[in-house]
Amino acid sequence: MGVQGWQALEKTVDYIPPEHFKIADAKRGDIGNSSGQYAKAFFETLNFDAITIAPYMGEDSVKPFLEYEGKWAIVLGLTSNAGAKDFELQKFVTKTDLLDEGIHIEKHDTKFLYEIVLENVSKWGNPNNLMFVIGATQAEEFENIRQITPEHFYLVPGIGAQGGSLKDISEMAMIDDECGLLVNVSRAIIYASDTENFSHSARGAATQYQQEMSRYLKRIGTYS
Amino acid sequence: MGVQGWQALEKTVDYIPPEHFKIADAKRGDIGNSSGQYAKAFFETLNFDAITIAPYMGEDSVKPFLEYEGKWAIVLGLTSNAGAKDFELQKFVTKTDLLDEGIHIEKHDTKFLYEIVLENVSKWGNPNNLMFVIGATQAEEFENIRQITPEHFYLVPGIGAQGGSLKDISEMAMIDDECGLLVNVSRAIIYASDTENFSHSARGAATQYQQEMSRYLKRIGTYS
Repeated sequence: MGVQGWQALEKTVDYIPPEHFKIADAKRGDIGNSSGQYAKAFFETLNFDAITIAPYMGEDSVKPFLEYEGKWAIVLGLTSNAGAKDFELQKFVTKTDLLDEGIHIEKHDTKFLYEIVLENVSKWGNPNNLMFVIGATQAEEFENIRQITPEHFYLVPGIGAQGGSLKDISEMAMIDDECGLLVNVSRAIIYASDTENFSHSARGAATQYQQEMSRYLKRIGTYS
Repeated sequence: MGVQGWQALEKTVDYIPPEHFKIADAKRGDIGNSSGQYAKAFFETLNFDAITIAPYMGEDSVKPFLEYEGKWAIVLGLTSNAGAKDFELQKFVTKTDLLDEGIHIEKHDTKFLYEIVLENVSKWGNPNNLMFVIGATQAEEFENIRQITPEHFYLVPGIGAQGGSLKDISEMAMIDDECGLLVNVSRAIIYASDTENFSHSARGAATQYQQEMSRYLKRIGTYS
């Protein structure tokens, strides 16, 4: 968000009724001391319920966000953007501890970086204070992701403007009628229209996504 | 930085004479659209010269920061904190393209994640718009890092409060009397004293680091 945006942000947060879950998609992550200050600013000063976190710097950069009762850290797992292929979807062989004399490895010994991130980060928190960002454009990975982190909620961007399918990811990653998915649609709603009547169009777009999601939820509810 | 900190930040930036190089240690990195907005806020609105960037989301999250004439993206390479060992210093085998029938690998086929990041990110920019964050606490990796990115400046935190040695990293990673290192000391200077006379103590600490650095620079200058 822009710099002048901070005051607008405080005002926006104040407009939102307190029963709504508020996520700061701020993608923070710094040395422990600084992450602690970010956590304080977003969770205490602004009273957000959750914040998105970049995992690159490791455990001490994530931990401070997990220490607030009733608050959530949402760590980047496999993101929706094209750049996900650069590091997150690089495939590595991880058996390097036995390497002194060389080893024979096969395809099933390999892992994507994002899988290593999910495995490690899920040990630092629990399903009640930790979620992961999983992009809807990565549908072919959703079943695998659900196996690695069977009990965690996912924050799912990439529906709408980025082309992800709400139907596909709902079928693959909803756990039960408690859901397991927090689907985020931003641009397809806030830019639904640029006329003076934009609030009507935005409401229409939001209602449409909500109703579609509701159908998938009912279907899961019947099966479970 | 804290939320109320944004107004203080604008004021602080205004205090600093324009000939000084100003780095926003903000560790941003988001989908291209959002990274573009962050770049605009820090480079145009606040007129920073550089900003630190987290690389996890890949090329489109970094590129918008490389598109400003005379400005710098400083991408996290190998950070100074304990959590660097969680992902940055995980050692991977990268030869996975030939894996269909299995492959024999040895130790020299492995790379740290941070090495893969340096190799890839350095292709997205050049030594005139891109630097890397390399923590002073990682002295044993500095020679290797200098081989991977021989012409890039490093922003080096971790001197002072975190225990890194200015002498060690200067010997290993200065290129010539144009330096190649931007050494950052924060807490050891701003927390040099908590008395009313703190500005005197802070100046003393800053001067001491500056003079030490100056000696190493002279030595390099003589040799080159």
